[in-house]
Amino acid sequence: MSDAFTVEVPVRYRDLDPMGHVNNGVYASYLEEARIAYIESVLERGDETFTSVIANLEITYRQSIELGDDPTVSLTVTELGTTSCTMAHEFRVDGGVVATAETTIVHVDPEEQKPTPIPEPIRERIREHEGLEASA
Amino acid sequence: MSDAFTVEVPVRYRDLDPMGHVNNGVYASYLEEARIAYIESVLERGDETFTSVIANLEITYRQSIELGDDPTVSLTVTELGTTSCTMAHEFRVDGGVVATAETTIVHVDPEEQKPTPIPEPIRERIREHEGLEASA
Amino acid sequence: MSDAFTVEVPVRYRDLDPMGHVNNGVYASYLEEARIAYIESVLERGDETFTSVIANLEITYRQSIELGDDPTVSLTVTELGTTSCTMAHEFRVDGGVVATAETTIVHVDPEEQKPTPIPEPIRERIREHEGLEASA
Amino acid sequence: MSDAFTVEVPVRYRDLDPMGHVNNGVYASYLEEARIAYIESVLERGDETFTSVIANLEITYRQSIELGDDPTVSLTVTELGTTSCTMAHEFRVDGGVVATAETTIVHVDPEEQKPTPIPEPIRERIREHEGLEASA
Repeated sequence: MSDAFTVEVPVRYRDLDPMGHVNNGVYASYLEEARIAYIESVLERGDETFTSVIANLEITYRQSIELGDDPTVSLTVTELGTTSCTMAHEFRVDGGVVATAETTIVHVDPEEQKPTPIPEPIRERIREHEGLEASA
Repeated sequence: MSDAFTVEVPVRYRDLDPMGHVNNGVYASYLEEARIAYIESVLERGDETFTSVIANLEITYRQSIELGDDPTVSLTVTELGTTSCTMAHEFRVDGGVVATAETTIVHVDPEEQKPTPIPEPIRERIREHEGLEASA
Repeated sequence: MSDAFTVEVPVRYRDLDPMGHVNNGVYASYLEEARIAYIESVLERGDETFTSVIANLEITYRQSIELGDDPTVSLTVTELGTTSCTMAHEFRVDGGVVATAETTIVHVDPEEQKPTPIPEPIRERIREHEGLEASA
Repeated sequence: MSDAFTVEVPVRYRDLDPMGHVNNGVYASYLEEARIAYIESVLERGDETFTSVIANLEITYRQSIELGDDPTVSLTVTELGTTSCTMAHEFRVDGGVVATAETTIVHVDPEEQKPTPIPEPIRERIREHEGLEASA
């Protein structure tokens, strides 16, 4: 896991809720940052040229994240379907895992917002980066 | 499902992202509104007297929610553990289900933020409201 | 002031910050709700047919807004320029003013995002609603 | 102005609204980041030991901020009253000013949330950092 794609996500005061912790919904925004950075740096695509929607999101919270923490979020592609892609994530603070998540996105046509196959060059880049074998 | 506890969640312009849809993370805030209303009206407790943290959250997105939609979010308790409680949710627009979710919360001591049993009077109210039988 | 255009803005738990009050930045979202409702109901235009950007925003905070409050936000057009429009706002809770604000927007061409005159039919509606006289 | 206290504020996807720009209200969160960093690094105080509320906020928007921009926000104390403090801000992208702001905060007692004098050691630090003279 140590060589998974990882981004730093600085905590903002606005991320906190009255309990003084990062609000549960904000984790979805942190995941979004990881996805966008992955699309940009691994796929070398601007956000606009790879349009996707979220189909499923699951987050398991172990420990709270506080102001002053320097959380990181990792992204590992675990399944690469024809139109969809599933990613596993770890939120870490000081090296320890404070939350995990799994996201499934569906590649869509930007005009019609309908599922459409992930282009082969992009699939190839993902497989290379993740060390995945091409499905037969 | 028609008699599940349900709240209306007016969509704000700020909930939208550049795709013009309610951002995926905002669904967690809508769920939060349903939970708080449930605690207040079913448990007849102020938020401060029932402190909980989210342990797990899963959202499945079927159709996007747009500005001008009048979404509702339902909350049904599906499992009532000693310290935890699992809820199923449906997001509906014009009667149709546009997303589903499941949330597990853990009741915690407000001081120490450690899991602590859900008080029996509250458990009783939940069982009554949900038509759950007391576990033997 | 009692007959100013006014909207209700339900407070969400997510609007609160660690001090337990509605965060100062969220007031801008409440103002946004007032503007959008005004455009829709007074101008009878969908948001897409009246594109504007904010040029200036000033908010004066008198008392905090809390969860459980039922704030309203009013909107009164105080100045109607060729391309711009200035609005005064009052945030009220239980009838008392808890904050005031002034917003200046500039009507822009949706394509080029450049200032462009507010169409005369819209100006006429604003003047009628606000009881403003046409400038000579 | 080049030696004003300045922080970088990475733009998140969630900061954008349907127009594809950082939403006007998010600027208040960026200002909050500048204030918190100032309190921590200049005043050498944790957020909890300097409790303040916002009394007034004014933002003038010149150009939009987009995803991929690397905005900075500066903070210069322009007025130091007994209980209040006024700050001027510049938002810059690539060296150019895209927005300006002025914020007035009031130092409050954390328990009672009432205005209370800014302690002299903190005033001294602010004066030193800002090159302000002690008022006679």
